[in-house]
Amino acid sequence: MSTLDAYREHLREMGKLESALALLHWDQRTNLPRKGHPARAEVVGKLTKMAFELSISDKLGGYLQDLEEQDGLNEVERASVRVVGKAYRRHKAIPPAFYEEYAVAAARSETAWEEAKEKSDFGLFKDHLERMVDYARKFAEYYGYEDSPYDALIEEFEPGMTSAELKTIIVPLREKLVPFIKRLMEDGTRPEDGFMQGSFADEMQRALSLKALEAMNYDLDAGRLDPSVHPFTTTIGPGDVRVTTRFLPHNILSGLASSMHEGGHALYDQGIPDKLRWTGLDEGASFGIHESQSRMWENLVGRSRSFWTFFAPIAREIVPQLSSVSVEELYRAVNTVEPSLVRVEADEVTYNLHIMLRFELEEGLITGKIDTGDLPELWRDAMKRYLGVVPEDDAHGVLQDVHWSSGLFGYFPSYMLGNLYSAQFFAAARKDIADLDQKIASGKLSDLLSWLRENIHQYGKMYEPKELIERVTGEKPDPSCFVRYIMDKYTDVYDLH
Amino acid sequence: MSTLDAYREHLREMGKLESALALLHWDQRTNLPRKGHPARAEVVGKLTKMAFELSISDKLGGYLQDLEEQDGLNEVERASVRVVGKAYRRHKAIPPAFYEEYAVAAARSETAWEEAKEKSDFGLFKDHLERMVDYARKFAEYYGYEDSPYDALIEEFEPGMTSAELKTIIVPLREKLVPFIKRLMEDGTRPEDGFMQGSFADEMQRALSLKALEAMNYDLDAGRLDPSVHPFTTTIGPGDVRVTTRFLPHNILSGLASSMHEGGHALYDQGIPDKLRWTGLDEGASFGIHESQSRMWENLVGRSRSFWTFFAPIAREIVPQLSSVSVEELYRAVNTVEPSLVRVEADEVTYNLHIMLRFELEEGLITGKIDTGDLPELWRDAMKRYLGVVPEDDAHGVLQDVHWSSGLFGYFPSYMLGNLYSAQFFAAARKDIADLDQKIASGKLSDLLSWLRENIHQYGKMYEPKELIERVTGEKPDPSCFVRYIMDKYTDVYDLH
Repeated sequence: MSTLDAYREHLREMGKLESALALLHWDQRTNLPRKGHPARAEVVGKLTKMAFELSISDKLGGYLQDLEEQDGLNEVERASVRVVGKAYRRHKAIPPAFYEEYAVAAARSETAWEEAKEKSDFGLFKDHLERMVDYARKFAEYYGYEDSPYDALIEEFEPGMTSAELKTIIVPLREKLVPFIKRLMEDGTRPEDGFMQGSFADEMQRALSLKALEAMNYDLDAGRLDPSVHPFTTTIGPGDVRVTTRFLPHNILSGLASSMHEGGHALYDQGIPDKLRWTGLDEGASFGIHESQSRMWENLVGRSRSFWTFFAPIAREIVPQLSSVSVEELYRAVNTVEPSLVRVEADEVTYNLHIMLRFELEEGLITGKIDTGDLPELWRDAMKRYLGVVPEDDAHGVLQDVHWSSGLFGYFPSYMLGNLYSAQFFAAARKDIADLDQKIASGKLSDLLSWLRENIHQYGKMYEPKELIERVTGEKPDPSCFVRYIMDKYTDVYDLH
Repeated sequence: MSTLDAYREHLREMGKLESALALLHWDQRTNLPRKGHPARAEVVGKLTKMAFELSISDKLGGYLQDLEEQDGLNEVERASVRVVGKAYRRHKAIPPAFYEEYAVAAARSETAWEEAKEKSDFGLFKDHLERMVDYARKFAEYYGYEDSPYDALIEEFEPGMTSAELKTIIVPLREKLVPFIKRLMEDGTRPEDGFMQGSFADEMQRALSLKALEAMNYDLDAGRLDPSVHPFTTTIGPGDVRVTTRFLPHNILSGLASSMHEGGHALYDQGIPDKLRWTGLDEGASFGIHESQSRMWENLVGRSRSFWTFFAPIAREIVPQLSSVSVEELYRAVNTVEPSLVRVEADEVTYNLHIMLRFELEEGLITGKIDTGDLPELWRDAMKRYLGVVPEDDAHGVLQDVHWSSGLFGYFPSYMLGNLYSAQFFAAARKDIADLDQKIASGKLSDLLSWLRENIHQYGKMYEPKELIERVTGEKPDPSCFVRYIMDKYTDVYDLH
């Protein structure tokens, strides 16, 4: 067997283990009966360890070394060696004993966070958080970095991004958004959205979500829609990309928006071509690029006037309470803005401010400019400055997200970048697709999907985010597209003059 | 680490892989989208190979050799070494290259059988079947046996059973059943059961099944009920024993009976105590003993007058069509007898004759007394003698079951043994539990379950079937209990005098 064949076979074996793991995780969050959890944790632990061992095996190291020196690899093979090699070196950089120690501490920290959040008592979590920050700094040292240890962490989620570059994106974005939100709240007319509240059976909500997913051309022969507490999308294997969603009994919009969001993630994964299977490139380019797909379908499409022109009759048919609501009323109702305390409930205008706040704080923690003890106060202060609201307790403040409790630093910016990228991509799509809005208004969403397949999905992880964005849009990551989209749209929705 | 600890750890690792495999299989038959099947087959193949390698590893062989010579093992440890050692030696006896060759041929044979069944053309399957018979004989030679090669095969499903002993059970059973069925049909009064037919929504049927499973004390916090094409039960891990069932839209009884049958299997697995976890003993004593549990709940309980005394009001509440049907009418309707062509649709009186026929034919194939070419004719002939009906085509005759197509010989007798054992166990339970029928009639099924837990479930695979039966009933496997049960019950139901 040639080195290339042996390398491919090795990745294939890893891929199969990861497929089994993906199913174990999916099942855990959709079907697993309560008493099955302890044993499941052991099974997941065993397979995770096996997959990890394959990812740092000397055999793999040998293949990579050989292939990195080989000429004559094609583009996919070169990209595979680059991406897999990078992951290999990052994994190898971490001493196994250190990783185990961290894993145990992270599990404890997550438990402490749960309790702290429940009791809304940051004090119960502070020491754990400090420990997680210490671990994160050590990870950064092991990985290595040029300017900031934070860069070594964000690299995991958004390859090629740095905290310096993030700041050049965040500052102008914030300068536009903060005063605009103030204006919306003070001078704008809030849409009426009471008709979105009521009592909606799960079956009705599921039917509505399925109609949206079908319109998006999500392939249900290669996927499923199931309920879960926290919506997510997972690729279990080729031909098997599953979406979960959450239906709130009293709100008809939330579940639909979740389904479209996850559907956007799923379309990306369903669009990965077979030639990238089990090459290390059979996933999204980054967390941010992945989020750009979910946010595009949820917001740029799903909260557009054209989408509701098409979707209103369907919604009226399925949801009797909406039977006499007009397209314009629906469109406005799905676009209400409300500066609020909790990120996951935020609308598309205020969402990014929740992220900026987290970025500032976590970057400060990792670089040592901020003490964990000061976090609750700094959180309240930033909320006030950015959104004009202040949490009354830490449960709705610094304790609201799970990420930090398990040592996930550098993850949050992907959410913001996804929003910005989605606007850049959508603007590019609008240039390329004639009459895009009319097409959406007539329910023909396939042109947009084809464009995404052609320009983004087909490449999987072959390009780093920045390179991909430049190839598709001719521009660097830039907040101005997003700002323009938000201002134009909400000036109209809120009747600003 | 002591040898015993290392041995336990090894079994634990095997158990974790088997848990992942069980989930992959369950998902394949309940949730997997159509396009996910090819990749899933690869994932299952990989994990199966890994689990198999652990089961024949030299490390395990070494532990077993050590432990077989050790004094001071407790009863569970000794049984574990015996059961795991036996499986190890059986697996080791098969040359890997031979096994691979067989696996490929079996997959082809199953495909050929599917086509042959669809076209009802035995000729398309004959050569494959012949090949499967050859493989089965070779397996028997590798495993070794005393009297008949068939014994080496049945050992896989019913340890300690032989074809000679089976015959001593079958002959008297057949001599009683064949004339009794003839009498039922000629002199008996067939119950009216038209009210079981109609149009029944899945949700209604599911509600009915859940009520029955709850009454049986199936723990839904450690299990689930899902639909699948062929009902089955699977233990994914401790605290996770899942049941599937099949609802026929036009028949309200079929799905309920399936659910209770699978629920019986599930109660067995839920009753395996923690101390047997991942010892090789954490499953039923045999296929026959397992089937005794499913058949007991499906038939001895689920088709009894006392059960319907309790369950009729529940059924009437959930199924409007039954609202004015009496307990007696329901009881009789669930006990109609109909000599028919297809095993899986057979009632409890005629079922065993379907099995006897299969036993005769497969035993003849394996011992070389029967040529595959003669099978269709032999099948028709036996159906006529035993049940008085003759299939018009092979799809409803010799091609109806999947088992032989993948080389499963020696499996069928478990179904019959399960029926016989269930009657023996139930008679013993009736002796031990005061007023068992009244308890069932008042919905208190927990006494029966406790008895099964105490006498059967708690031992898992510690005892071979015969030993277990003798411990519980004081008797050897014997058809007379079953015959008495059938004759008493159906003499009454069919008004024979």
